[in-house]
Amino acid sequence: MTESLTSGRADRLHVQNNLGVPGRVEPSFARARRLHLHTHHELVAIMRADSPVCHAEGLAPHTQIYIRGGSEPIAATLYQVDGNFLAGDEIGLSEAAWNALGVEEGTILQVGHAPPLESIACLRQRIYGHRLSAEALSHIVEDVVAGRYTDVHLAAFLTATAACPFNEDETYFLTKAMVEAGDRLSWPSEIVVDKHCVGGLPGNRTTPIIVAIAAACGLTMPKTSSRAITSPAGTADTMETLTRVDLDLDAMQRVVAAEGGCLAWGGAVCLSPADDIFIGVERALDIDTEGQLIASVLSKKIAAGATHVVLDIPVGPTAKVRSAPAADRLAATLSAVAARFGVVTRCVQTDGTQPVGRSIGPALEARDVIAVLMGAADAPSDLRDRACTLAGVVLELGAAASKGEGRELAMRTLADGSAWKKFQRICHAQGGMRTPPIAPLTHPIVATHSGRVTHIDNRRIARLAKLAGAPDAPAAGMVLHVVLGDEIIAGQPLLTLHAQSQGEMAYALTYAAANRDMLTIAP
Amino acid sequence: MTESLTSGRADRLHVQNNLGVPGRVEPSFARARRLHLHTHHELVAIMRADSPVCHAEGLAPHTQIYIRGGSEPIAATLYQVDGNFLAGDEIGLSEAAWNALGVEEGTILQVGHAPPLESIACLRQRIYGHRLSAEALSHIVEDVVAGRYTDVHLAAFLTATAACPFNEDETYFLTKAMVEAGDRLSWPSEIVVDKHCVGGLPGNRTTPIIVAIAAACGLTMPKTSSRAITSPAGTADTMETLTRVDLDLDAMQRVVAAEGGCLAWGGAVCLSPADDIFIGVERALDIDTEGQLIASVLSKKIAAGATHVVLDIPVGPTAKVRSAPAADRLAATLSAVAARFGVVTRCVQTDGTQPVGRSIGPALEARDVIAVLMGAADAPSDLRDRACTLAGVVLELGAAASKGEGRELAMRTLADGSAWKKFQRICHAQGGMRTPPIAPLTHPIVATHSGRVTHIDNRRIARLAKLAGAPDAPAAGMVLHVVLGDEIIAGQPLLTLHAQSQGEMAYALTYAAANRDMLTIAP
Repeated sequence: MTESLTSGRADRLHVQNNLGVPGRVEPSFARARRLHLHTHHELVAIMRADSPVCHAEGLAPHTQIYIRGGSEPIAATLYQVDGNFLAGDEIGLSEAAWNALGVEEGTILQVGHAPPLESIACLRQRIYGHRLSAEALSHIVEDVVAGRYTDVHLAAFLTATAACPFNEDETYFLTKAMVEAGDRLSWPSEIVVDKHCVGGLPGNRTTPIIVAIAAACGLTMPKTSSRAITSPAGTADTMETLTRVDLDLDAMQRVVAAEGGCLAWGGAVCLSPADDIFIGVERALDIDTEGQLIASVLSKKIAAGATHVVLDIPVGPTAKVRSAPAADRLAATLSAVAARFGVVTRCVQTDGTQPVGRSIGPALEARDVIAVLMGAADAPSDLRDRACTLAGVVLELGAAASKGEGRELAMRTLADGSAWKKFQRICHAQGGMRTPPIAPLTHPIVATHSGRVTHIDNRRIARLAKLAGAPDAPAAGMVLHVVLGDEIIAGQPLLTLHAQSQGEMAYALTYAAANRDMLTIAP
Repeated sequence: MTESLTSGRADRLHVQNNLGVPGRVEPSFARARRLHLHTHHELVAIMRADSPVCHAEGLAPHTQIYIRGGSEPIAATLYQVDGNFLAGDEIGLSEAAWNALGVEEGTILQVGHAPPLESIACLRQRIYGHRLSAEALSHIVEDVVAGRYTDVHLAAFLTATAACPFNEDETYFLTKAMVEAGDRLSWPSEIVVDKHCVGGLPGNRTTPIIVAIAAACGLTMPKTSSRAITSPAGTADTMETLTRVDLDLDAMQRVVAAEGGCLAWGGAVCLSPADDIFIGVERALDIDTEGQLIASVLSKKIAAGATHVVLDIPVGPTAKVRSAPAADRLAATLSAVAARFGVVTRCVQTDGTQPVGRSIGPALEARDVIAVLMGAADAPSDLRDRACTLAGVVLELGAAASKGEGRELAMRTLADGSAWKKFQRICHAQGGMRTPPIAPLTHPIVATHSGRVTHIDNRRIARLAKLAGAPDAPAAGMVLHVVLGDEIIAGQPLLTLHAQSQGEMAYALTYAAANRDMLTIAP
């Protein structure tokens, strides 16, 4: 191999005479070196600028290169370095690139220009408003999952489909491509229920309660949840403060066989892996379009083997869906797309005018969930009510309750302790129950004047919790002390911020000071 | 400073009692370390995952951080590393970040979360089709120039403005913001001429010839050119093979004072710096929209102090502008926007059905330019004709020739050697003339059958030259041996590929073999 690292190899380029097809081109090789460099999802490779490979291949910094090790080649962004940090025949790899390649220290890797991506032509057409075919979306999703799309391409795709929204056909094609690009679960039961909330409502953590109720009533509910996209906590973030959520396929199947339900992170099993890549970029742009939302929700549910899905759509002026007609449209498109996969859906519009429960942030929301499940006297009643309403729809859709009797059954299952017992058994099966962490720093935000709480801005409340560190800092977020309609006196605490670092507490306090009207107090 | 690197500093967070405004937050500090890491334009910072700063500030990998040194703070993407590659109190910087900060080894830098960018809200609105105000575009361009936009944000902005094109107002606002975000040149002469070609036509390297003619005829033509966006060569790439083009403001002024004209790279002076950042991402996406194109052209021209601008718009089925009506529309919008700045424009539609001259690629095109200027017998006549037509319009617009007499004067100036003499003087003033490099590898592509050349696909010809390495490899590209209408016999060379590396030659040959119909030969 070493000889191919020399640069004077012009004599070894053999080409046919008049077709211009290279008969044989000596590839360039380099030795793998793990840099222990954390870049999140980005596949980064670093080589010496003066290395023979960069010279022979004509590789410049910030270009996309292909790296071939044992199995699948990967595409990575190349950076170059001067000096002796790397040897001339080494290629340094970020953790994401290292894991994607699955090689060992010193493995000889083949390095070259990334070939032009054919699916970029489809992306470009979509930017200019042309609709995408099933085949085009399939190519795009394949390239995304293989890591061949850079942040620039991902952002362009997501922006193009926000600027000119997907139609129903495209949404179906995208969903299908996303399902097919990952694993698919199947379950012995004929009916497999699932639920999803389109989000936008801080603290709306009903899922763990619903799964406990449904499973306690004998339904099969193998729940996989994502982490937060633009919110301060996702169900996976919250559940992770209570138990292990990174279950592989075997573990999920074992838990569901034993308990009827589970509460796992969808990213640990390879269900719709494109979704997690899209979500990372959507988060950076803070956009979440209807087509992407439907494809994200349905691809996960279909890949997870769901046959019956309940969708919670909170509606309110500062929720993700702002009006009943918008919720109707979303429900209609989602149900139509789902039907093309043979999946039955039920969409429930819920009150989205203010946060649910009293806590926002992974660990803080976990406390609310436990309080409801345990039937604690001070458990937030709004969270309990919503969970029972939605669980009722799940029970009816899954034929565990007759029409009109689901909510009653859900409340009974909660009241008699069987949901709480089921929840503990699920956590135990997933690896044991944990105590949610408590933030080392707390700070109250108090009312500057007396009056009545007339409006709560969900978006700015969520932003505040995120600035305090949620969801990356699991104990961070806030506890709300007031709800709409409360009479307040000046100096009374409106909420308490929780943070794990001083920097984050400072950002949150600065934001809170500049946005005191996120809680409107009318005199 | 060292004490602030310890993590137990909770007691030092002082906040006011009820406003939530942090009275004083101890910032986190780290020592600058130059990594000699080449990332192109990306500002990258690397810290240890277990460093006190990352801990105290709650910094995760792939987040945007702020770094404050002497003058302006910069935003950079944070990567984290395990182990002893960096000390716990060090922050490693890519070359782009190092140069943007302008610090020295060991300088103590302040590090923290990047504050939320207000202009991202404008970007998001634009994605959903809302028009941007002058103020919004000004904020966006300021943030772009300050390096606060990541590739994700840049790609989203460019995609949004491709999906829903800029209207005339937005184009004007963007142009204005781009002019104001950089330096502006001014010249003693009342009339300052300039020209620009919208591109899309390989080999169309008229600019050096036009500048030589205009300056020889006494006009002031301080030409700044960009590097290639999506083409195999820009004028700056070509001129760089002949002389120094990275002139600073002083050097440009000196050259123009002495010779009346110059041929500099626009990126070396800080004219419309946002343009170069946008171009980097447009290149990755291979998109170039009308609004961005107009803002790019005009912002550079206005910042360079031009008062009269000639625009060459090649029209052809595979040129950037595909029809006369499309060229008319572009000309109308461009002229209207230019008029709002008091700049007079003249748009000239030219034949865009096939490449110009016989060479494609920086150094190869330089040879064609020199041949025309020297009046060589075998100089490409189409390049000479186009240059004289456009130079004629420049001479008339700049009042150096009467209406209808510009082209005659241009041809005389070329024929009597004064343009060639002026060109040499300009190169000399810019730092001396160079001999363009010659590629070590060449390979002919021959006709597989006999017939007449009926169609040449500019886009695929350009793509082929790029795969051969142009413009990054300056000697790479191709020499065309045929033009439309030529009668060809099987086995006759159609073009010769030039490459600097075997990898690139191989890619070009593979592409050529798969795209033999880029030159249509009808039997």
